[in-house]
Amino acid sequence: MSPEPLDIQTPSGTFEISIDVRWGDMDALRHVNNTAYFRYFEEARVRLFAAMGLDGADGRYGVLAHASCDFLKPLMYPARVVVGMKPARVGRTSLELDCWIADAGDPGTLHARGRNVLVCAEAATGRPLPWTDADRQALGRCFAV
Amino acid sequence: MSPEPLDIQTPSGTFEISIDVRWGDMDALRHVNNTAYFRYFEEARVRLFAAMGLDGADGRYGVLAHASCDFLKPLMYPARVVVGMKPARVGRTSLELDCWIADAGDPGTLHARGRNVLVCAEAATGRPLPWTDADRQALGRCFAV
Amino acid sequence: MSPEPLDIQTPSGTFEISIDVRWGDMDALRHVNNTAYFRYFEEARVRLFAAMGLDGADGRYGVLAHASCDFLKPLMYPARVVVGMKPARVGRTSLELDCWIADAGDPGTLHARGRNVLVCAEAATGRPLPWTDADRQALGRCFAV
Amino acid sequence: MSPEPLDIQTPSGTFEISIDVRWGDMDALRHVNNTAYFRYFEEARVRLFAAMGLDGADGRYGVLAHASCDFLKPLMYPARVVVGMKPARVGRTSLELDCWIADAGDPGTLHARGRNVLVCAEAATGRPLPWTDADRQALGRCFAV
Repeated sequence: MSPEPLDIQTPSGTFEISIDVRWGDMDALRHVNNTAYFRYFEEARVRLFAAMGLDGADGRYGVLAHASCDFLKPLMYPARVVVGMKPARVGRTSLELDCWIADAGDPGTLHARGRNVLVCAEAATGRPLPWTDADRQALGRCFAV
Repeated sequence: MSPEPLDIQTPSGTFEISIDVRWGDMDALRHVNNTAYFRYFEEARVRLFAAMGLDGADGRYGVLAHASCDFLKPLMYPARVVVGMKPARVGRTSLELDCWIADAGDPGTLHARGRNVLVCAEAATGRPLPWTDADRQALGRCFAV
Repeated sequence: MSPEPLDIQTPSGTFEISIDVRWGDMDALRHVNNTAYFRYFEEARVRLFAAMGLDGADGRYGVLAHASCDFLKPLMYPARVVVGMKPARVGRTSLELDCWIADAGDPGTLHARGRNVLVCAEAATGRPLPWTDADRQALGRCFAV
Repeated sequence: MSPEPLDIQTPSGTFEISIDVRWGDMDALRHVNNTAYFRYFEEARVRLFAAMGLDGADGRYGVLAHASCDFLKPLMYPARVVVGMKPARVGRTSLELDCWIADAGDPGTLHARGRNVLVCAEAATGRPLPWTDADRQALGRCFAV
């Protein structure tokens, strides 16, 4: 599959939310389980989509095509984390996001770094839909510098 | 960080387990949630480590350094899936695994494909430990063709 | 709220499924987390409803009105558990179930005992719907002695 | 088993925390899954124990002996909930808590009401330990009116 053409207007700001780690996010090794990192990314994606007005109400939703994570430093409970996202590439129907997780009290130290690739899809059929001009403007607002 | 030297004896077989999808693995979009895919990979890793004799009892455990997943085809409940793993690379202290998830009733159709990187670590300190000859022999047995 | 009239034809058999405990069901105390017990009950309810033909396809579904659990004996990974259910009371629109969790390899030793109360509801409105004669016959089949 | 003698000094105040509902707490019925309610109760218990100084560091921890929940009103995402607890009974080694979940924006409307019974246990053996005078004073502080 050849790559989608690069969008020259990829916004350069970041989108951030904060999440309270729950005790139940830990596993038997007594640190936050790897699946919780992907849950934190998911929460950020959902809020990003809501901020963009892509909440499913208009018959479109965001499908996760790829997710990856480098686990850099264990997370312990209790903690409040910042989950950040920054567009790496805006394709015709896709959005590639650089993601990271840092401690809210020490934002310079990263606990994880990853990549999420989303595809805008038609709810009824699951088929990819091109981003509209309104979507691109919304992206620009959500990732304003 | 320069890559670890390749181990020429990377075993070529696969390690497979099967998992019953639970209704609760689905999310509000009515298909299996992305975090469940990483949970399935985790279960396979844990059973692989138990099969290798690396169950934490000897003061060593496997640390997940990286996980990625391409979501190829939605999974619905009910289902029984096969989770497969195959070494892509055995480093001095690390193990890189190609992973996949298929329907047990239709093993030729992949639902997901991913990569997991594990590091053998000392439980007391978290420091990486080189694989022993016994570990490499155990790997060979677990991934026998 | 006065109790619903007792149904004299409460079936006396049990409905059982088995579930593989996942490593990720454990928590930081290194035993299966309390929420996993309710997940196991949920899985049994869902399969019971499917066996009764109440899978949502006919515009009705089962709503959980109450759940309780006595945690009798910690569960550790790895394990395969049997989740059992037995009607305690069949009301006009409700089904009260005695539930238990035992080790599949040692079914006489209970790890948990609980109670689930389900209400049959209209999917469109959420309003309770009386069980039909067909439902009661299906209950009788699922809980046959 | 005869009930433990009532402690006449059961404190009469409440202990409350707030929790952000996550998108992933919802299930395929598009409302917050029943197991998430027990996770919210768990988070409140853990923070209560930390506030009481019972964080496991002194060789004691709180074991959940019983949990129940009446599901009164579905919870949807997004939401911020208040989880409240109030001692119903303080036994020699146990603590019985009335629990509830309300919307933080509408605290008068309950989404759930339940009961949690905790037992103070010795970490090494799991055996019940009597509350100390210091514990009872801590309880009084945590549940001050």
